[in-house]
Order: sequence, then structure tokens, then C-alpha cells
Amino acid sequence: MSEQRVCVSDFEKEARKVLPKAVYDYYRSGADEQKTLGDNVAAFNRWYLVPRVLRDVSSVDLSVSVLGQRLSMPLCVAATAMQRMAHPEGETATARACRAVGTGMMLSSWATSTIEEVMSAMTASPHAGGVLWLQLYIYKDRELTLSLVRRAEEAGYKAIFVTVDTPYLGRRWDDMRNRFKLPPHLSMSNFSTASLAFSEGNYGNDSGLAVYVAKAIDPTLCWEDISWLKKHTHLPVIVKGVLNGEDAVQAVNHGVSGILVSNHGARQLDGVPATLDVLEEVVQAVQGRCDVYLDGGVRRGTDVLKALALGAKAVFIGRPVLWGLACQVKNHTLIRLSQEGVRDSPSHPHSY
Amino acid sequence: MSEQRVCVSDFEKEARKVLPKAVYDYYRSGADEQKTLGDNVAAFNRWYLVPRVLRDVSSVDLSVSVLGQRLSMPLCVAATAMQRMAHPEGETATARACRAVGTGMMLSSWATSTIEEVMSAMTASPHAGGVLWLQLYIYKDRELTLSLVRRAEEAGYKAIFVTVDTPYLGRRWDDMRNRFKLPPHLSMSNFSTASLAFSEGNYGNDSGLAVYVAKAIDPTLCWEDISWLKKHTHLPVIVKGVLNGEDAVQAVNHGVSGILVSNHGARQLDGVPATLDVLEEVVQAVQGRCDVYLDGGVRRGTDVLKALALGAKAVFIGRPVLWGLACQVKNHTLIRLSQEGVRDSPSHPHSY
Amino acid sequence: MSEQRVCVSDFEKEARKVLPKAVYDYYRSGADEQKTLGDNVAAFNRWYLVPRVLRDVSSVDLSVSVLGQRLSMPLCVAATAMQRMAHPEGETATARACRAVGTGMMLSSWATSTIEEVMSAMTASPHAGGVLWLQLYIYKDRELTLSLVRRAEEAGYKAIFVTVDTPYLGRRWDDMRNRFKLPPHLSMSNFSTASLAFSEGNYGNDSGLAVYVAKAIDPTLCWEDISWLKKHTHLPVIVKGVLNGEDAVQAVNHGVSGILVSNHGARQLDGVPATLDVLEEVVQAVQGRCDVYLDGGVRRGTDVLKALALGAKAVFIGRPVLWGLACQVKNHTLIRLSQEGVRDSPSHPHSY
Amino acid sequence: MSEQRVCVSDFEKEARKVLPKAVYDYYRSGADEQKTLGDNVAAFNRWYLVPRVLRDVSSVDLSVSVLGQRLSMPLCVAATAMQRMAHPEGETATARACRAVGTGMMLSSWATSTIEEVMSAMTASPHAGGVLWLQLYIYKDRELTLSLVRRAEEAGYKAIFVTVDTPYLGRRWDDMRNRFKLPPHLSMSNFSTASLAFSEGNYGNDSGLAVYVAKAIDPTLCWEDISWLKKHTHLPVIVKGVLNGEDAVQAVNHGVSGILVSNHGARQLDGVPATLDVLEEVVQAVQGRCDVYLDGGVRRGTDVLKALALGAKAVFIGRPVLWGLACQVKNHTLIRLSQEGVRDSPSHPHSY
Ligand SMILES: Cc1cc2nc3c(=O)[nH]c(=O)nc-3n(C[C@H](O)[C@H](O)[C@H](O)COP(=O)(O)O)c2cc1C
Ligand SMILES: Cc1cc2nc3c(=O)[nH]c(=O)nc-3n(C[C@H](O)[C@H](O)[C@H](O)COP(=O)(O)O)c2cc1C
Ligand SMILES: Cc1cc2nc3c(=O)[nH]c(=O)nc-3n(C[C@H](O)[C@H](O)[C@H](O)COP(=O)(O)O)c2cc1C
Ligand SMILES: Cc1cc2nc3c(=O)[nH]c(=O)nc-3n(C[C@H](O)[C@H](O)[C@H](O)COP(=O)(O)O)c2cc1C
Repeated sequence: MSEQRVCVSDFEKEARKVLPKAVYDYYRSGADEQKTLGDNVAAFNRWYLVPRVLRDVSSVDLSVSVLGQRLSMPLCVAATAMQRMAHPEGETATARACRAVGTGMMLSSWATSTIEEVMSAMTASPHAGGVLWLQLYIYKDRELTLSLVRRAEEAGYKAIFVTVDTPYLGRRWDDMRNRFKLPPHLSMSNFSTASLAFSEGNYGNDSGLAVYVAKAIDPTLCWEDISWLKKHTHLPVIVKGVLNGEDAVQAVNHGVSGILVSNHGARQLDGVPATLDVLEEVVQAVQGRCDVYLDGGVRRGTDVLKALALGAKAVFIGRPVLWGLACQVKNHTLIRLSQEGVRDSPSHPHSY
Repeated sequence: MSEQRVCVSDFEKEARKVLPKAVYDYYRSGADEQKTLGDNVAAFNRWYLVPRVLRDVSSVDLSVSVLGQRLSMPLCVAATAMQRMAHPEGETATARACRAVGTGMMLSSWATSTIEEVMSAMTASPHAGGVLWLQLYIYKDRELTLSLVRRAEEAGYKAIFVTVDTPYLGRRWDDMRNRFKLPPHLSMSNFSTASLAFSEGNYGNDSGLAVYVAKAIDPTLCWEDISWLKKHTHLPVIVKGVLNGEDAVQAVNHGVSGILVSNHGARQLDGVPATLDVLEEVVQAVQGRCDVYLDGGVRRGTDVLKALALGAKAVFIGRPVLWGLACQVKNHTLIRLSQEGVRDSPSHPHSY
Repeated sequence: MSEQRVCVSDFEKEARKVLPKAVYDYYRSGADEQKTLGDNVAAFNRWYLVPRVLRDVSSVDLSVSVLGQRLSMPLCVAATAMQRMAHPEGETATARACRAVGTGMMLSSWATSTIEEVMSAMTASPHAGGVLWLQLYIYKDRELTLSLVRRAEEAGYKAIFVTVDTPYLGRRWDDMRNRFKLPPHLSMSNFSTASLAFSEGNYGNDSGLAVYVAKAIDPTLCWEDISWLKKHTHLPVIVKGVLNGEDAVQAVNHGVSGILVSNHGARQLDGVPATLDVLEEVVQAVQGRCDVYLDGGVRRGTDVLKALALGAKAVFIGRPVLWGLACQVKNHTLIRLSQEGVRDSPSHPHSY
Repeated sequence: MSEQRVCVSDFEKEARKVLPKAVYDYYRSGADEQKTLGDNVAAFNRWYLVPRVLRDVSSVDLSVSVLGQRLSMPLCVAATAMQRMAHPEGETATARACRAVGTGMMLSSWATSTIEEVMSAMTASPHAGGVLWLQLYIYKDRELTLSLVRRAEEAGYKAIFVTVDTPYLGRRWDDMRNRFKLPPHLSMSNFSTASLAFSEGNYGNDSGLAVYVAKAIDPTLCWEDISWLKKHTHLPVIVKGVLNGEDAVQAVNHGVSGILVSNHGARQLDGVPATLDVLEEVVQAVQGRCDVYLDGGVRRGTDVLKALALGAKAVFIGRPVLWGLACQVKNHTLIRLSQEGVRDSPSHPHSY
């Protein structure tokens, strides 16, 4: 408050102070030794911007069209589970912030607010702008899975991001040490049974969420299931979690509308490449047949420029939004990043 | 005083002790995460000198001709704003030091001494030698801009360095936290209104200088303006802030007399390359059609040798002069660096 | 106990607390400046996993055939000397753990349990599974050497791993400082004289083990001795300690059944490459004419995947087993690593 | 004494404790920012040994012929000035140590013992073996210079190493801060006037030795002076301080008997390459027309192996001998390194 926050890590430092340790740990953690976690961020420093000078930059347009919707800027909100641990209004606060800045929000299957609640929060807001998409985990129970899709369609969500990197949950050491589970007053609101809503009392001597995933999520998931999903919805389907060109080609061949280059914020398999490092390979493999997005480690306006210069249509941020929520300044990190975007734009980004 | 200062960082350490924190921060800071700030210096360590032995080095001539003037050495003073925050005599003290060692000084548009005052200080000094150039910011108010040029011409300045990397001010975190502005007894002396002289009382919750730039400096600046400027002055025009070969070619095509490879001491856009890393590209693009200079991170005599070996005609230093001023030993850093130059010259520099 | 151990370094930290300093130092140390010691581990971070998505991973089979025996997983136990310094049951406890998880154990010539004792411990265990191999040092006394082989044959060991990287012992600084020797109640149990059993009272001002090796082990060892050994046993012979393709070819030409790429856990010659860095070269030189194994620095399930992706049939771990013994949880590190193996398998490992 | 010293840095640590600060600083320092100082040592870690196994290493011969003399090993003592600051017997103690281990010693022109004294110490020693060479600085006074050569010839020295990298003294910050000069009871013993013997009372506000060099040493030194020197002595002449292939070729063309690749222990010009990094270039340029030696950063037996594998005939050490002297164990570091040499020899060194 007295001290001004000028960058994402200022928000994180404050969030660390106000959040219960197990919550902060869950938000922050990556898998295993967290090499990829650091690498996601470090990768952006391995690319340089080559600024061109003496261009008229008095007016700059950052808007972009993503999956058929116009957004104010190429920076959107990635799905992060259980946002009410950070802020009492959780996902609904994030939705209002996205509306205010005119960008898109990907709602997690594991939200602590319902699909319908979040849409209401967004549309009830006095601002104009903002888009909602649903992030989808494929459950062993396929009917249950399709019911989430149908609810999203009915509520007015504009696309489905299927997460394909989570047949089992990554080994996150602090969650194992903390035996992570939801605080008793919260649950995954889109589900009705305690078992599906991640609100059982005891998950033994492990990360509760790892136990949950092993029980509920479908490890048989394969490419045919993308075709199956597309048959059951008219919404665009995007695969979230692709890290190489061969999988990208297969995705295009299965008719996806977009590919989100992501390693799940380094939370699933440690030792995989930073997302920025594989972006070019994916962009080249896809050859313009669908849009390519990226998430993982985006922390500055210039990071967005670099990803765009390497071929991404737009990028997503996960943790920065959680730090903003925890600091009770919902849309502040977004606004901050969008301001940076404007300021940085004098430099037309090229990378080498 | 008791402890001898033997290198630029000795001066910086002492300056840090004597300067008010907000002043030291303003002088020291780079943009954003300051990756380029560190890289500017580190780049010099990525190049090695390959010394040749058994050459007669009993007499060594370091003098060089820069923009038609003979200097005692290929090391000049870059424009740094508001030097009276470091020393009561500010830019006039720097001018006297340059005169004493026989080199050139680039005066900032944002000096806390007037164009005329600085020229008087230099010519009144008993020494012989020393040259003055004006660093020019292009204001939205073009008449005002030209009046600075005309005053420089009349006072006997020998060239105009137009800064082309500042359509908006870089995000310098500490200046934002400090809400940086000039102390009340100082102002940018070349301007008469409080608004232009950066002496308004309140710049809100941001770096005051960023607010100032957004209000006064022209973000429409483009290549045609270089032609416009050349039409209005007979002085040589040099562009300050070029970082790649394509812009360098355009500069030459617009008739500049020199190019200063600079990233503004890493204060504008973070994530751009170190200046030494792009020097060769610029030198090759220019093909001898004008002189190429460099600033950024020069801290040792051997740094000068490396830049020269890579094709620079001369180099400029910014911060080291400020630390010297703050230590009240005005020209000491210059003398120190010039002595190093002589000592190092036994080794004919080659780089690989 | 209260705090859950989630990775090998958690075990090491605890082992460091419970073990006498000289014992911990002996287990931990590498040769000289220990550059290779760190590099063995770091090498795994220089290789990335490129995960493929949308493959059915609901059932995964980790079993593998090593030297004619089926193992539950491609992760075995390397020979480490004198395990009773870590745990009163020493090598017999390790044998029971290997039996329990169904993998293979290489018993050191320098065990503090006899060849026969360790086989009894393994076969007496209620579990099914587990294989024993003998690690062999070639003594100056060749009859003594062959007697170890004969005892292994009779007890039902399935192969002989000849260590070829120890004509002299590596310089391990802490062992020199500690004047390392066995505690009085222990001895190398396979030998009957105090001199051979490493239980003399005084080894002077040096590592006792270095003195022992200089006296007892044969520094004339050469390729012909591999042929000699093969003539005297029907068991498969594997050379342990090869680090380049040319030696690998010679090994194959001398009829070995397998090659263990190893630098002895960086305990012999400092400054040699990390084992993972030379694995590919060895695999290519061998051209499938025998199996290639690797040890050195394996600490995570993903490390195993990387070695396998680079051509190893199976890998071995040394120190992690010692930390497990010291923590009194004998087979826990093995179980932990085998669980990780399963969890990680969703990602089909490719390396680049 | 109680704690065993097992490596060169153990000796350095102890030396630091027992030596006066200004003496330790003088011995330890490199020029300027000391980048090359660290790099000399680090370069050895950028090269790996590829050990071959199963070779008979029961007997190993380390002896080598250097400039016509048989030495017990390819490790000799480089010239270091003013050794009596480390030990009351200074250079004579070093000579006795070299005699004891049977290797060569290069005596500095700036010794605190005379040319004749050091030869007496060596020949009076009961051991057999040991060779003396003179390191020569070329003084402005050429007659004085030749008188040193003549004294060396008469005393039985076997070669002259001319130092070619010191037209001016390197900037060593700590010596400047300490205003380094000899303690009053010592002098450069080969000279008779206080001015030449570096025993004037006051050298002002600088390193005394830098002042001395500027006054006495000849900065006009060039290739013709090598021919001049060869004309005045029948001893082999070696140039000390070559760092690239072109200078090496010129040296051979001027008839030198050997080239010592050296950057003066990183004490002259900072920012030059590590000696190991240019060794191959020099060896290739010379094409066997004379011997190539190396000094700088050698601290372990394996360092010697690496330099030999890259083409050096023998290597020299500077500082390690000073630490040994300061610890009052004169020849201990030499013996230690020679023992390491033997131990490491099982591994036939190859580099890649
Ligand atoms: C606390 C947290 C929860 C997450 N929950 C989900 C989720 O429920 N579904 C999903 O597909 N990805 C989830 N992710 C991954 C994000 O969608 C995104 O890929 C990642 O956070 C981007 O990296 P960043 O955090 O470095 O910006 C989560 C990430 C975090 C940090
Ligand atoms: C405190 C400070 C103020 C500066 N003010 C100006 C300025 O007014 N105009 C300008 O073109 N550059 C300005 N610069 C940039 C310098 O001219 C120069 O490019 C830079 O300082 C060189 O890098 P160095 O400080 O590492 O030597 C300033 C730099 C500093 C550090
Ligand atoms: C304490 C210790 C004792 C060892 N004893 C032997 C031994 O007796 N014989 C042998 O061939 N290798 C021995 N080794 C080497 C191991 O077999 C193996 O090569 C090495 O430990 C693998 O590296 P890691 O410890 O990083 O997993 C020993 C290693 C350690 C750490
Ligand atoms: C304290 C000291 C004094 C030295 N004095 C001389 C000298 O008088 N003449 C000379 O040619 N080299 C001199 N050298 C350089 C050494 O001969 C040698 O090149 C260098 O020490 C090798 O590097 P090292 O110290 O890393 O082994 C000196 C070096 C040191 C450290």
C-alpha cells in the first residue's frame, strides 16, 4: 500500500506473506526438483529484443482476435484451480477483472466457483468486454465430462481447452509434505459429490490432489478422445499441453482449433523444456493451420512481445493472477502488464 | 581519501555512501529487471584481448579525431541528466575536467546547467583542449527544440547527438518506488517554465520523469525528422541509440555524420542486447560511410581497447563520471581511465 | 518421521545427521576437487524429456530382462563397500530390499557381510524376486581372486562385474584428512586375514583404504586378464568402469556380456566426463553386441528414463541405497524410485 | 600439522594466515578485475580426461628431457620474485627442494637471493638432480642486463627465460592500495644500488613495483632484441609470455629454443585468454620446431596431464611454491604434486 508494487514479483512477495503456507506452496510449486519451473522464466532471458528506432509510436493498437473474439490485448488468463483459497470471491473476481481490461479467462474444471456463477459475475459487471472459455479435464466418467461441456455451452462460454498433460498428477514435493487438500469451507463447485468435489476428509500420506487425480481422471486418454469430444460440442476445441511438433501435427489432423504450448506451469513433468524454447518448433509444424498460444513463465510485457515475435497469437498467465487475487487487487496485475505492453511497443520486437 | 580508489567501482561504492538514496537510485538504475544493465558490463568479459609481444611501446599516441576535432584519447563523456544532484557545480565541473584531459563532453538536454554556462566553464578554464556537443531530445514543441539547437550553435558546440530511443521513458522500478523528481533547488536549466524545467511539485504515484516525458517528448519521431533537423542546422548530426544494422543503414541514408551504438545505459528497454554485442553488426552495415561510436558498460581501459578493436572510433561513459562528481574528484575517473589506456596499450588488441 | 521424505536428498540430509562424520564422508566423497561428482548429477539436467501426449498410459510395464533374469524395473543396486557402517544388518538388509521390489543387487568384494550370508538373507525372505551379482576386485593374489568367484558361483550369484577403474585408489581428500579405516567391530568379511580384511590397526597418515589398495590390488591388470577370468568361470562377465567407445569395443572383442558405463561414482579420477555424457558414444560403439548399463548420479525416476532413452538397458544406484540404510528404511529409496518410475511413464522419453 | 594438507589450496589457506597482508596480496594478486586470474584455473576444468582402462600401470616413468637436461617429472618451478618475504631462506630453500625432487627451477631476476647463492644452495645439497635457469628482465641499461646473463653462465645455469610481457607492470589493485614495496631488511639481491635493488624508501601513492618497472625496465623491447641476446650468450634462450600462434612463429624464426605460453600468472594484462586455452594454437603454429611449455593455474596432477595431452613438453608452477615456502614445508607442494602425477598416470590422458 505505502510501498508501490512495480512488478509481478512484488505481488508474489506480498502474496507469500498473506497466504497460508500450504496454499502459497500449492500455487507456487512445480514438479520434482523444479528445474523446468525456473527454466520457464529463464527462457525469456535467452531471447533478446532488437528494437527499431524512429518509428511513429504515438498510437499503438494491442487488440487481437482470439478464437473469433476481439480482445483488448494478446494476454489472457490461464486456468488455475481453486482460486477462492486466494480471495473470498475467487474466480468471480478474476472474471470481473478480465471484463474490465477486455480480455479472456480460461476457467478451470477445478474452480471453487461454478461455471454459471463465473459467467454471471462477468456479464453482471458494468464494463464491456471479456470472454470466458472452459478448461476441461476428461474424467473416467465420460457422461460427467460431457455435462461440464454442456453447462459451458449453455452459459455462453466460447471454447473448450482440453488439458492433455495430466493422466497422473505431477510430483510436487511441498504438496506431498503438506498433504495438500482444500480448506473445509471450499470445494470444487462444479461437482456434487464430496468425492468429485475434492472435499473428502482424508487423503492419506500424500498430496490429496494426486490421490484425487488417480481416482477420477482418465489415464487412457488418447487422440481418439479428441475426435469424440469434437463430436459432442459445437465449441472450438483447443489442446492444452503440447510440447513438440509431432504432437502438434497430430492435433491439427484431429481438427483442433488451436494449440496451447504449455507444460502446465512446470507442475506436471520436471525436466521438460521451457515452453518458449519449443514454441518455434510447434509454430513451424502447424504451418498456420490453427492458432498457437503459449503459457508458462510470462511475467513482463516484454515476455509477451517475445512470444508473439516467435509466432504465438496470444499468451496466458497463471500464477501472476493468483498473486494479484491474494493482494486483493484483482485486476491489478493484468492492468500493470497491459500498461507495460503499451509502453514497450515502441520497440518492434524481433528476436534472434 | 586514506584508502586509494583504483577502479570505477571504488568510486561507485563511495558515491553510494554520499548521495541521497533517490539520487543514487536514479543514476544507477536500468529498466525493468535490469538484465541488460548487467549484460552491458558482462559483454566486455566475453571478449578477450590477444596481446602481441615484443613491439616497441615506449611511446604511444592515444589521440583521435572525432567529428573533426582532435581529442587526447578515444574516451568521451556521454550525456547524463541533472548532474548538480551529484555535485554543486554539476555539468560545469564535468566540462572543466574534459578540458583538462582534452576530451569531448556531450551535454544533456536535461542538464541542470545552461548550454551557455557549460561552454563558459570550459573555455574559462586555464587548460587547452576539450570539445562540447549537445545531446538533443526532440520535444513535441518543435520550435522549442530548434531553439536549443540554435543556442548550441551560437555557444560554439560542435555537434548534435539526437537521442532516438526515448519515445517513452523506460520503466525504472526504483524511480517508480521513489516517485523520483528533482530536489526543489534544482531544475532543468535550459527551460523557462516549471512544466518544461521538470520542477512541478507533484508527479503522482510514478516516476516523475516518466510523467514528464509522456507530456513533453514527441513519440511520433521518425526518420523524416532527422532530415528536418539536418535542414535546420549546419552542425553534424549523430543518432544516439541505434542497436542493429538495418537502422544503421537507414541512418547513413538519412545523412547522419555518426552513429552512437547505445541502449541508453540499459535504462530504456530491458531485454535488448549489450551494446558491445551489436557493435560489429553496425560497423559492418555502415561500411565506413560514417563513424560509429559506442556507450554502455565501459568501465576499464581494456574495455575501450575492445570496442576500438571491434570498430568503434571512440567510446563514451555515462555513470563513471557521475560517481567521480559525487566523490568530489571531478576529472579523476577520466584521468584514471586515460592512464589505464596508456598502460594497456602495449597489447595491440585483437579479439576473437 | 513426522516430516515426509519425498526425494533422495531428503534421505541424504537425514543420513548426514545420524552417521559418524568419517562414515558419511567416505560414502559421500568423490576424488580430488569433486568436479566430476557434481557433474554426474548435473549431466541429467542437460538433457530434456520431450513428452508425447494423448497416449493410453493406464497400464505400464516397467519390467526388463538383465543378464538373463527378469527384473521388476530397470533400476538395480550398485556395489558399495562396507554397508554395515550405515546399518547393523548392512548388505543383508539391502538384499532383502531388492528381493522385496524384485530387482538385482551387485555385492561389493569389500562387503562387511559374506557372499553366502547375503544370499541367505535374500532367499530366506518371504518375497519372490531379486537377483545377486558379485562385484570383483582383482587381487595381486590370483588364487584368492578366483576363490571369491567360486564362492559366488556356488552360492547362486548370476554374474561377475569386474571393476577396471581401480589400479590405485582415487584421492579422496576427506578420507585422507580422516585417515579413514573401518570401525574396529567390522571387517571385509570375505577375507580371513586382518591384512586382507582391512582391519589392521594403523594405516599411517593417509586414507587407510588407499594404503590397502596399493598393497593388495593388482595394478598390472589388463585386457588379457578378462580372457583369463572368463576361462575360470561360467558366469557372465561384465566390465565396470568403461568411459569411452574404444575401450567398449575392446571389451566386446574380449567377450564380455555387458559393459557398465561408470566412473565409480566420481571416486577414482576427477576430471573425467559425467557418465551420462559418454553413454551415447559407448552405445554406438557397441552396436548392440552386448548390453550397456550406467551408474553415477541417478537420483530421480526421470534420470532413469533419460539413461534408457540414450540406450542403457538398466541403471544402477550407489549412494541413495546407503542413505536409505542409514535412515533405517532399507528398501524405501528403491520403492520411492520405482513409484516415480511408474508415475513418470506417461511421458514417453525422447531426448534432444 | 594436526590437520593434513591434501591440496594446494590447503597450503594457500595456511599461507594466508601466516603471511603479512601486503605480502600475501602481492603473491596472490592478478591484474585489474582478475578475470584472467580465475580463468587460468577454470580453464583446466573445461577439459576432460578420457581414461583408458585395463593397461598395466604397475610401473610408470614420469621423467622428461627439458632443454637438454633430464628431469624427474614434467613439472618445474616458475620464476617468482622476492621469495624471502615468504620464508627466511627464500630462493635457496626452493632450490634445495627442486634438487630433492630432481626438477628444474627458474630463478627470477628479482630474487632476494643472488644468482650465485642459489646455485650454491642447490649444489651443496646432498641430493642429486635439479637444474637452474635464469629468468631475465631486459633493463634499459643493457650492460647491466648482460652482466646478469654472464653471472648465470658462470654459475652454471642452463638456460635464459626472457620475460616479454612486462614493458610496464600490470595494474594490481591491492598492490596499489598497499603501496607495495619490499620490507626494509630485504632487497633484490642481484643489484647493488638501492634504486635497482628496489629498496628505496618511498614510491609514492602507487604500487612501488610499478614505479620501479617504469623507471628501470625497457619498454622499447622488440624482436631484434632476442637476436641481440642470442648473440651475447651460448645458453638456450626461451621467450616467456607468448599467447598466440603468430608471435610463436616469430619466436621460432628468431631462433629461440623454447616458448613458454604464459600470461604471467594473470598479473600483467587482465582480459587475455587462459594459457591452457591458447596452448593448442601455439603448439600447432610451432610445428615441432621448438619445445612449448606452459604456466598459469596448474594446481593438480591432472592439470599437468591435460597440458601435456595438449602438447606441452613440461609445465611450471608459480604461486603453489610460494604457499609451500610460507608453510615452511619447502618442497612439500612439489612432492605432493609429483605423487599425484604418479597416481593419476593409470589414466592415459586424452582430451576432447
Ligand atoms: C495453482 C495452479 C493451478 C492450476 N490449475 C490448473 C487447472 O486446473 N487446469 C489446467 O489445465 N491447468 C492448471 N494450471 C496450469 C495453468 O493453466 C498454466 O498452464 C500455468 O499456470 C502457466 O504458467 P505460469 O503459472 O508460469 O503463468 C494451474 C497452474 C497453477 C499455478
Ligand atoms: C543518470 C543518467 C542520465 C542520463 N541522461 C541521459 C540524457 O539526458 N540523454 C541521453 O541521451 N542519455 C542519457 N543517459 C544515457 C547516457 O547518455 C549513456 O547512453 C549511458 O549512460 C552509457 O552507459 P554507462 O552509464 O554504462 O556508461 C543517461 C544515463 C544515466 C546513467
Ligand atoms: C561408498 C561407496 C562405496 C563403493 N564401493 C565400491 C566397491 O566396493 N566396488 C566398486 O566396484 N564400486 C564401488 N563403488 C562405486 C559404485 O559401485 C557405483 O559405481 C557408484 O556409487 C555409482 O554412483 P552413485 O553413487 O552416484 O549412484 C562405491 C561407491 C560408493 C559411493
Ligand atoms: C608473486 C609472483 C611473482 C612473480 N615474479 C615473476 C618474475 O619476477 N618474473 C617473471 O617472469 N614472472 C614472474 N611471475 C610469473 C610466474 O613466473 C608465472 O608465470 C606464474 O606465476 C604462473 O602462474 P601460477 O602462479 O598460476 O602458477 C611471478 C608470479 C607471481 C605469482
